[in-house]
Amino acid sequence: MNTDAGPALRRPCGISHVGIVTPDLDRFRAFYETTIGLDATMVFGSGPGHARQAVLMAGDIMLHVFEVPGYDPSAQGLSDAMFERGRLDHLGFTVTDLMALTAIRDRLIAVDASSGEIRPLGPMLSLRFQDPDGLESEINCYNTAFNPSTMRNEDGIVTPEWLERARQVLHASPSTSPSCTTSETSSNCQDTSTTTRRGHE
Amino acid sequence: MNTDAGPALRRPCGISHVGIVTPDLDRFRAFYETTIGLDATMVFGSGPGHARQAVLMAGDIMLHVFEVPGYDPSAQGLSDAMFERGRLDHLGFTVTDLMALTAIRDRLIAVDASSGEIRPLGPMLSLRFQDPDGLESEINCYNTAFNPSTMRNEDGIVTPEWLERARQVLHASPSTSPSCTTSETSSNCQDTSTTTRRGHE
Repeated sequence: MNTDAGPALRRPCGISHVGIVTPDLDRFRAFYETTIGLDATMVFGSGPGHARQAVLMAGDIMLHVFEVPGYDPSAQGLSDAMFERGRLDHLGFTVTDLMALTAIRDRLIAVDASSGEIRPLGPMLSLRFQDPDGLESEINCYNTAFNPSTMRNEDGIVTPEWLERARQVLHASPSTSPSCTTSETSSNCQDTSTTTRRGHE
Repeated sequence: MNTDAGPALRRPCGISHVGIVTPDLDRFRAFYETTIGLDATMVFGSGPGHARQAVLMAGDIMLHVFEVPGYDPSAQGLSDAMFERGRLDHLGFTVTDLMALTAIRDRLIAVDASSGEIRPLGPMLSLRFQDPDGLESEINCYNTAFNPSTMRNEDGIVTPEWLERARQVLHASPSTSPSCTTSETSSNCQDTSTTTRRGHE
């Protein structure tokens, strides 16, 4: 419980951008715009000390993509394997429902970028893909078959509203008809009163 | 221009989660909850083949944090330097205004995690910090002093609404009083009609 009597805790209300490095901006854009379905909003030309950059939108989050010609993490000894490719390991992109997930899966399979397997991961469904640079990420939607009673005793709920928060993340409305509108979501940029934080398990 | 007469392009409406690796989940949580101000919603206990995991919320985006005891990218030859730490390079967390940015800056300075310098980066203000694992990221808010006329000839606008999209990303309303509500933002999960995509510059 936050009993701080001082000023309210100012805190982030989202992620503005993810910085991503690619050796080939054109190839990156072709994949993420055509196959994944993101929009580019800006392309910055090269200048002193930097090559091209682009901004792609995943809803209201930016991918800030930096072209570093010749960039090859494997030359630094990095593998493409999960947990061996840097502190930031992967991204999951949100789609609203299984129909959208299936549509993107079909596009990914067509360019040989995914096995097409859709797996349940708690309240999410997950489709893994590998981009042309070898970066493995996911497409996610809400798993309508998720049963919270399958939680284990070893798992700790820190915020009682965790499942509702997960639904908000996945743009899944409590009703049976997930929609893409964000009007029902709450952004909690500022913690003005009580918190449900319980400290560390 | 998208002249595809087939089914509408199904596309992501956001980022559900970012997968992050830490060698010390307790230290990670202490920093991101107390200093940055995120909320944890779930902590998953270790099990066969995996150690602990936690879900922290940055607004409606999850950080899915995997504890990998002993994880040390520098042992793999990775540096902490920008563009040398993996394909996913950094995150930027959104705050609504300079007051929130300054509040978090003060907390970061208090734990020696930031120089405190706030720099303009186009339509964003940026405060860099380094977390206890050495990962460098940013806190961002909208730069109310940004002048789009400073764009260079080498820079290409792909989407005419790029600046409005950037404002949405940063939860900055077109008025002078940025708010934290998301009701004004538009999520574009599905491309039902025209697009402003112009292809690659």
